[in-house]
Amino acid sequence: MKGIFYGIGVGPGAPDLLTLKAIKALESVDVIIAPKTEKKDGSVALSIAYPHLKKDFEIVHQVFPMVKDFASSPESWKKNKEQILKLLESGKNVAFLTLGDPMFYSTYIYIYRLLRDEDVEIRTIPGVPAFCAIASKLQYPLVEGDDIISIVPATASPEKIEAALSASDNVVLMKVYRNFSEVVHMLKEKNLAKNAVMVSRCGLPDETVNEDIESIEQMPNYLSTILTRRRK
Amino acid sequence: MKGIFYGIGVGPGAPDLLTLKAIKALESVDVIIAPKTEKKDGSVALSIAYPHLKKDFEIVHQVFPMVKDFASSPESWKKNKEQILKLLESGKNVAFLTLGDPMFYSTYIYIYRLLRDEDVEIRTIPGVPAFCAIASKLQYPLVEGDDIISIVPATASPEKIEAALSASDNVVLMKVYRNFSEVVHMLKEKNLAKNAVMVSRCGLPDETVNEDIESIEQMPNYLSTILTRRRK
Repeated sequence: MKGIFYGIGVGPGAPDLLTLKAIKALESVDVIIAPKTEKKDGSVALSIAYPHLKKDFEIVHQVFPMVKDFASSPESWKKNKEQILKLLESGKNVAFLTLGDPMFYSTYIYIYRLLRDEDVEIRTIPGVPAFCAIASKLQYPLVEGDDIISIVPATASPEKIEAALSASDNVVLMKVYRNFSEVVHMLKEKNLAKNAVMVSRCGLPDETVNEDIESIEQMPNYLSTILTRRRK
Repeated sequence: MKGIFYGIGVGPGAPDLLTLKAIKALESVDVIIAPKTEKKDGSVALSIAYPHLKKDFEIVHQVFPMVKDFASSPESWKKNKEQILKLLESGKNVAFLTLGDPMFYSTYIYIYRLLRDEDVEIRTIPGVPAFCAIASKLQYPLVEGDDIISIVPATASPEKIEAALSASDNVVLMKVYRNFSEVVHMLKEKNLAKNAVMVSRCGLPDETVNEDIESIEQMPNYLSTILTRRRK
């Protein structure tokens, strides 16, 4: 029998934020596909999954060229696809792990696209996104009533960020890093700086929380998220 | 010893989308606070929690006046608060359950506000939001790369909805119901109708999925969500 391909959201980083469904899937997995140039993200996901995996599970490393070049690197993606199909055909259950939710800014989306037109059973298991975990931890209500919330990567163009800030009551800003002072300036202009809170390296031992983002002078860590709202 | 107040996200509706952390909290709960005029939502949350609760847990029903009148009904909210504080002082662990995530459009936010300035230990446990579960189920990537996503209750004003649709690449529209044809019209104008998919009563036995929202003639069920994106 052919194996199943799983996209598993392991949640935001805390091992106890795994769902029962994710655990059940992990217990059936034979092979984990992991990026060759493993970023911190990937190894955190694997360490969360680890206690639930079979003793003899295998890791298959694959090269995922920058996702922006998805269309321009058909060869390496094709190679990855063929390797995965071979594993599935040999009856192995194969999984790709995602921190947070797999349908939310993840490499899994590209692997899913690669496989969706093949004769493969794909099961995607949702997870708790990081911004929900941050909100609960800081007891920061994300959105209520008829309010509109936008989730904005700070890597988007300034024009797009500005338009989203104008159109939203509440905002989650992700990947706040290089353009930090520009982002703070925009938040101030849109009356969104006062109630903002920034979390860096959430859940990690050196996590920091800052409730006065206008006072921050250093460039924040790469893994920084701002939650904000116009109304108190 | 005083009890702890828990806000517990039980996930989108499937019992196996509970997290380990939510289960552990449920196991320690003595009292569940539930709205007196129980909507379907509340009883679904309770039925998910039920297998993990102590055999002798109590339900305390409270009246929550419409959340929009939060400020104008101080008396009933004050009564609720005093009842909860009494339970906590008697050493009982008290919980309020939320479908999805507790910091995301939930009554819990109001109860949390009621208690946050009191001498009470509050623990909020995040959950998988419904839109993540819908996306995984339909294998519909929510957002990728530098794209911006907005989560928009269709109960917001048409002007606000329109501004959010213009400013976003991808959109989750919740509570699509009374103004359904108006919403579809706006999505068409903003070039967001073609890739849209609508789910009604997700996870329930009479769930429906519709990938051609322009063809829908009947008013959809109250529990309907549209996922959409500008790019294919």
